[in-house]
Amino acid sequence: MTEPLKVAIVGSGNWGSAIAKIVGHNVLKSDDFATEVKMYVYEEMVDGRKLTEIINTEHENIKYLKGHKLPENVVAVPDARDACREADILIFVLPHQFVRRICSNLQGHIKPTAVAISLIKGFDVHDKGLELISNVVRTMLSIDCAVLMGANIASEVAGENYCEATIGCKKPDFGKLLKKLFQTDYFRIVVVEDEITVELCGALKNVTATGAGFVDGLGYGDNTKAAVIRLGLMEMVKFCEEFYPGSKMSTFLESCGVADLVTTCYGGRNRRVAEAFVKTGKSIPELEKEMLNGQSLQGPPTAAEINIMLKAKNMEDRFPLFTAIHRICIRELEPQKFIDCLKNHPEHM
Amino acid sequence: MTEPLKVAIVGSGNWGSAIAKIVGHNVLKSDDFATEVKMYVYEEMVDGRKLTEIINTEHENIKYLKGHKLPENVVAVPDARDACREADILIFVLPHQFVRRICSNLQGHIKPTAVAISLIKGFDVHDKGLELISNVVRTMLSIDCAVLMGANIASEVAGENYCEATIGCKKPDFGKLLKKLFQTDYFRIVVVEDEITVELCGALKNVTATGAGFVDGLGYGDNTKAAVIRLGLMEMVKFCEEFYPGSKMSTFLESCGVADLVTTCYGGRNRRVAEAFVKTGKSIPELEKEMLNGQSLQGPPTAAEINIMLKAKNMEDRFPLFTAIHRICIRELEPQKFIDCLKNHPEHM
Repeated sequence: MTEPLKVAIVGSGNWGSAIAKIVGHNVLKSDDFATEVKMYVYEEMVDGRKLTEIINTEHENIKYLKGHKLPENVVAVPDARDACREADILIFVLPHQFVRRICSNLQGHIKPTAVAISLIKGFDVHDKGLELISNVVRTMLSIDCAVLMGANIASEVAGENYCEATIGCKKPDFGKLLKKLFQTDYFRIVVVEDEITVELCGALKNVTATGAGFVDGLGYGDNTKAAVIRLGLMEMVKFCEEFYPGSKMSTFLESCGVADLVTTCYGGRNRRVAEAFVKTGKSIPELEKEMLNGQSLQGPPTAAEINIMLKAKNMEDRFPLFTAIHRICIRELEPQKFIDCLKNHPEHM
Repeated sequence: MTEPLKVAIVGSGNWGSAIAKIVGHNVLKSDDFATEVKMYVYEEMVDGRKLTEIINTEHENIKYLKGHKLPENVVAVPDARDACREADILIFVLPHQFVRRICSNLQGHIKPTAVAISLIKGFDVHDKGLELISNVVRTMLSIDCAVLMGANIASEVAGENYCEATIGCKKPDFGKLLKKLFQTDYFRIVVVEDEITVELCGALKNVTATGAGFVDGLGYGDNTKAAVIRLGLMEMVKFCEEFYPGSKMSTFLESCGVADLVTTCYGGRNRRVAEAFVKTGKSIPELEKEMLNGQSLQGPPTAAEINIMLKAKNMEDRFPLFTAIHRICIRELEPQKFIDCLKNHPEHM
């Protein structure tokens, strides 16, 4: 008999907490998993108390997922090494800016047989260009890393509204195990092998959603937003073809693709802040502070990251939507000019 | 020198009137077209006056597109034969239920050299099965027929909000001419050759939008709606593959595909009435009367039409979403059961 697998969650924001609820319940239902799930929580003081203490006594992350109880077998741990030391499966779910720091902290302090799954959306940027977050995990920790992306607004998942998600995983057995860990009656999983495209969709949709927020801020309707969504999707497909050849078109039709794009362009925080950006004239960091209660935005930094590469390769013209979104975020272009970018998009030429 | 081409519009509802505004302006900009555009208007009395008279004096269709002036070169004509007799290009834009009747009325009364474009969404049903509306026009009038579909809520197009549309047309020269007739600064056209898929997308999206309205009526959020949109899209793709082989996957990424689906699932009338259907318990015909001011709904009848074929071919199981939507519309299934259909969808198996 094999030992039940220990699961650790690295991150405890809005999405990390929603996932902790699912995973905490699911480990109890299968002999494959150990019952305790450790969750690394970046320690902070909330109303004079430590957040880990609040989670471990009240079983609720009152800062990032108020109103939803976590299962009692999810244990908040303020030290990442303590949370991960014995884990067989590591679930990475934190803003992409923190991945290198956390991986470097974990180096040499995890099981060499561990495997990981990344729920993180964005890219890592370094002097050689862009790198997928899953690849940072793979390289820095010398372990395998799958990905999970999908049309999943965290609060709705926590509220057990029916939705879907996509796991990208090259190894079928590992994929099956992950499906068992994540799938519930209301959170439906499709596993595909094309893990790179799954992850790229997750990162790039936030850029498009920022554009969708701009047209909302400018007062346009559903038709215009649909055009932004479609042109964004076309640039996502082209981006994958150009820089990560071998994508399957069918992956874009999974939850990680068109469905997540749509949800994010209607309900997500990138859209919401981008709308306020146009209406108020305030800067992105100001609005993040005012509107997001400590959460960070992924769209504008991702737009900046891919722009570094597009500029270096002299390819900004071929991705006019992504380029315009970045230039609007850094106030190099008036939001009103975004409509011109749509009108003159190469798709219509 | 060739004679300028005369254009007639067959239909004058919400969408027909919005298109009349575009086409009326565009014919004035190009020597290819005659300046007068005749529009067939089904005569009815509005506030004691004939609708054609109102349109021809006030240049506004106050019943179906209130608040938007039509160009004065658009002339309302109460007799379909009079409207079409001299036309070189016929634009069909009326509810699909009326197509056979109007074509049979026009038989022998149009130029044999005329060509048509259909903006109609839905299928024609007869004892041999389903038939595309464009094909009814082709067969009954012995003329060529292209199609135009896209993410186009009529009132937003009339308000000149930026949007896109797709023309499906096998003949490149005819396609170019049609682009000239329809494209404006705010209404951007892509022409593709895959005309059958363009038309199928236009018909089938209304079925999916009806499902989106059900989940809104049941109180679910954006995640659930995204799942309905995605599973609907998968069934649309499968429907095309199964019954009209040769579809290009790329057509689903045009405005007629994913973009129109999204717009319709968020902003369209099928969604709106389906939501009310769940919340009020009233029947579809009752709600049509109450909410649509004489317009008719395309989603529920299209769901019924494709169900006839699916049932006959014993294929309801392979299209569970389309089937459930139809069964809910005819009160054979409780709306609450729709979520079970999503949970057990073959895509997750």
